[in-house]
Amino acid sequence: MIRVLVVHETRLVRSGLAALLRDEEGIDAIAACWASAPGKARSFQPQVCVVDGDSARSGQPTSHPGGPGCALLVLASSCRPGTLRRAVAAKARGFVDKDAPPARFRHAINQVAAGQRYVDHTLTLDFLQAADMPLTARELTVLSLAAGGASVPEIARELHLSSGTVRNYMAAINRKTGARNRVDAIRISQGAGWL
Amino acid sequence: MIRVLVVHETRLVRSGLAALLRDEEGIDAIAACWASAPGKARSFQPQVCVVDGDSARSGQPTSHPGGPGCALLVLASSCRPGTLRRAVAAKARGFVDKDAPPARFRHAINQVAAGQRYVDHTLTLDFLQAADMPLTARELTVLSLAAGGASVPEIARELHLSSGTVRNYMAAINRKTGARNRVDAIRISQGAGWL
Repeated sequence: MIRVLVVHETRLVRSGLAALLRDEEGIDAIAACWASAPGKARSFQPQVCVVDGDSARSGQPTSHPGGPGCALLVLASSCRPGTLRRAVAAKARGFVDKDAPPARFRHAINQVAAGQRYVDHTLTLDFLQAADMPLTARELTVLSLAAGGASVPEIARELHLSSGTVRNYMAAINRKTGARNRVDAIRISQGAGWL
Repeated sequence: MIRVLVVHETRLVRSGLAALLRDEEGIDAIAACWASAPGKARSFQPQVCVVDGDSARSGQPTSHPGGPGCALLVLASSCRPGTLRRAVAAKARGFVDKDAPPARFRHAINQVAAGQRYVDHTLTLDFLQAADMPLTARELTVLSLAAGGASVPEIARELHLSSGTVRNYMAAINRKTGARNRVDAIRISQGAGWL
């Protein structure tokens, strides 16, 4: 029996994903929110932990609530290379497209539980793009503060920079993301999962 | 037997929600994406159609892919009054919190299929806020263009207004939403589901 812990912030979604997995004989799945996941992982001892890759914070690897013996399987939206990048940083062993049919999701669970890697073929192009992150860590920090509603002087104060330097960063970000302005750069970067 | 059509843009999510409903005796549920939903509704003839309220477009009512005899049940995130407002405009009969336990979701399906209304108690406060939409239709249009990356002159051209008038709208939007600037107003309005 493969024990799977499904972690998602939305209760009906995580319950639904666990129900999908339990439809397969040989899989036992329970669901948890992020806050309760580490505790549930300790008592349930899952072999596979499924998490929503899009829930990872900018610049941080995807969380892995399971222990060292537990494989991480990440659900990812296509066209969001930033999500894959954070999942790779978390040493995920499986990558499944959120738009995959349920049978493929269950197959991936079986593969990963058997010690194999699994990468959904529909995510291949995103992996190529994920290797080619356009923004530096500093630029990401600047853009992430801007996305939170901070003005240029506020960002400058927060990062101990001059306003001119922050404006230079913003110009570089716009150029690299092909954005028309700051709002556009935030929109594009959030869409790609970089932010 | 209650026939339910679950519509969501993400395949694993809609499949999972349908699996949750099928766990209850007396409910038959199938899943569809938005594009295939009207066709599936014609052949399956569901009594209840479940849709993700957050997928509705700014300023438009939530789509109802079922026919006139089919009740609409909307899944809504709490703290997004704009989602509820669009669901009310679509004459939804049921409103279920996405964070509700699966049993409550199934109970809501039964209620709505029996001709009753169902409103999740955790959404009550959001309904009060939904009645109190802070932005006018014109302000929403301006903010929605800004969120798409348009500059003030571009918005002015699109809406046949002067740049000064657009700036006045933006100032009113910032004041009403309590935002520090344009990026902040977009962030706050998207979070509330107004945009």
